[in-house]
Amino acid sequence: MGGYYGARLHHAGLDVHFLLHSDFDHVQAHGFKVISKHGDFSIPRPKIYRSVRDMPRCDVALIGLKTTANHLLPDLVPHAIQDDGVALVMQNGLGAEEKVAPLLKPSQAVLGGLAFLCSHKVGPGEIHHMDYDPVRLGEFRGDGQPAGVTPRLSAVAEDFRRAGIHVDIEEDLLLARWKKLVWNIPYNGLCVVMNCTTDRLMQHPRTRELCGALMCEVAAGAAACGRTVGEDFIQTMLSYTDKMVAYKPSMLLDHEQKRPMELEAIYANPLAAARARGVHLPRVQMLYQQLCAIDDLSTQAQ
Amino acid sequence: MGGYYGARLHHAGLDVHFLLHSDFDHVQAHGFKVISKHGDFSIPRPKIYRSVRDMPRCDVALIGLKTTANHLLPDLVPHAIQDDGVALVMQNGLGAEEKVAPLLKPSQAVLGGLAFLCSHKVGPGEIHHMDYDPVRLGEFRGDGQPAGVTPRLSAVAEDFRRAGIHVDIEEDLLLARWKKLVWNIPYNGLCVVMNCTTDRLMQHPRTRELCGALMCEVAAGAAACGRTVGEDFIQTMLSYTDKMVAYKPSMLLDHEQKRPMELEAIYANPLAAARARGVHLPRVQMLYQQLCAIDDLSTQAQ
Repeated sequence: MGGYYGARLHHAGLDVHFLLHSDFDHVQAHGFKVISKHGDFSIPRPKIYRSVRDMPRCDVALIGLKTTANHLLPDLVPHAIQDDGVALVMQNGLGAEEKVAPLLKPSQAVLGGLAFLCSHKVGPGEIHHMDYDPVRLGEFRGDGQPAGVTPRLSAVAEDFRRAGIHVDIEEDLLLARWKKLVWNIPYNGLCVVMNCTTDRLMQHPRTRELCGALMCEVAAGAAACGRTVGEDFIQTMLSYTDKMVAYKPSMLLDHEQKRPMELEAIYANPLAAARARGVHLPRVQMLYQQLCAIDDLSTQAQ
Repeated sequence: MGGYYGARLHHAGLDVHFLLHSDFDHVQAHGFKVISKHGDFSIPRPKIYRSVRDMPRCDVALIGLKTTANHLLPDLVPHAIQDDGVALVMQNGLGAEEKVAPLLKPSQAVLGGLAFLCSHKVGPGEIHHMDYDPVRLGEFRGDGQPAGVTPRLSAVAEDFRRAGIHVDIEEDLLLARWKKLVWNIPYNGLCVVMNCTTDRLMQHPRTRELCGALMCEVAAGAAACGRTVGEDFIQTMLSYTDKMVAYKPSMLLDHEQKRPMELEAIYANPLAAARARGVHLPRVQMLYQQLCAIDDLSTQAQ
């Protein structure tokens, strides 16, 4: 995800610096390669770094870590951003902005980004972009209130648009995050527990019904946090998924590749946010409990 | 189950007639063989029948069909029982007595039996009894009220006791059935969905917690039907399962052998009974929804 947007922003002429881990050597030798439905391109000599301490501080730091690696944030974030810069947190679920905010100076800000992207890394430095790439961007406020549209939010949106990416500006980041959870909570988890693609869940009347019931619970969680997700949005998400081809959500891909699943961001944090306001989500909790056991079993088996 | 208790009752000198299906030819040639912790025995020439129409009507007809074959009941029950006889329904879950009762004459009665038996058929006519065999017996009343202890209930209990089987007489059959569901609902279903034995569910704190939450919902279902299952009973069931060895509930065995699972008796009927009284059991329902899809997938794959 970070590689795809970074490459696109670079391709549009922006000054992008990439912090790499396991792909460093390969990209140093061969650069980045993007195979995309918007046209293939490559970056023979991107500015890449093995350590955040070698990077210049940037005006915008796009954080695309898997949330399961968020224990690394305190070691990375403080070194990556200019004094008046912003952290753009493009991670799944809830709670990432809350982790990044305390690592920043008062003059710095946190934005949140939601990617609707269908891409995957086919090899070191090589990204296959299959479909979609719009983002939703909003500014984070620690008090949970909508932050509206700030100049720095508009400026970052402009950068993405310059790279040909469709941007929706969200005046209320938390609402946008809960709306994304309406899809992510049922489909990510159920595809892992039932070991199937989204179409199988939608074809069986009982699991389709369960997806709807889980979505209603997510809407109840949003309501507990003062955000309204309407019944019409739930119906739209169900119809949208009915029409999708057989799809493996990222959590199923993680599980199949024996990577840890993003259970804290996608399940534990939303459950805790609702529970703190006295709202229980029994089906979401049950799915989380099933996934915890599957995740531990899978990790133990390694 | 029917073979085990029938063989024991025969062994104790009772006049037992066995209705057989696929095992008929083998048993006609070789008889029954029971390998039991209470001592092995065989019945070289049991009274066996291929059709209920060839059987003499009995004073007690023990019904041990899997509930998934209950569509056969109308064809079997009316031919099996004397005019003043009883149907002893030894099936899982809820709803079987309600299906049998309308098939009887007013002079006949329905008893319900719950078997706590660890045995399986190792081949045609050959039963391996590993552990336990107590039964709980109670009389059924169509109005849902406890029937108390009737003379015919005591008489049937006496037959079982004569065969060395421990019997508890239940004054309230419906309460006994709900109590058995407190164990059956979480463990049968979760072992299938999670594809594991009971010990794995108990070892992981999240799934152990989920078992307890499911048990509490079953108790709420019982309460909706006017039956009290206390918190202490739930704790006892959890502790009891903690101490059990790795165990595969019958539903997991059915699923592994590609037999249909007893979802109607163990899930749909209890859910409907609670819902009819305005009580929703979201976790039990979610488990049922997951199992329906697994069951259909497995049946389609045959």
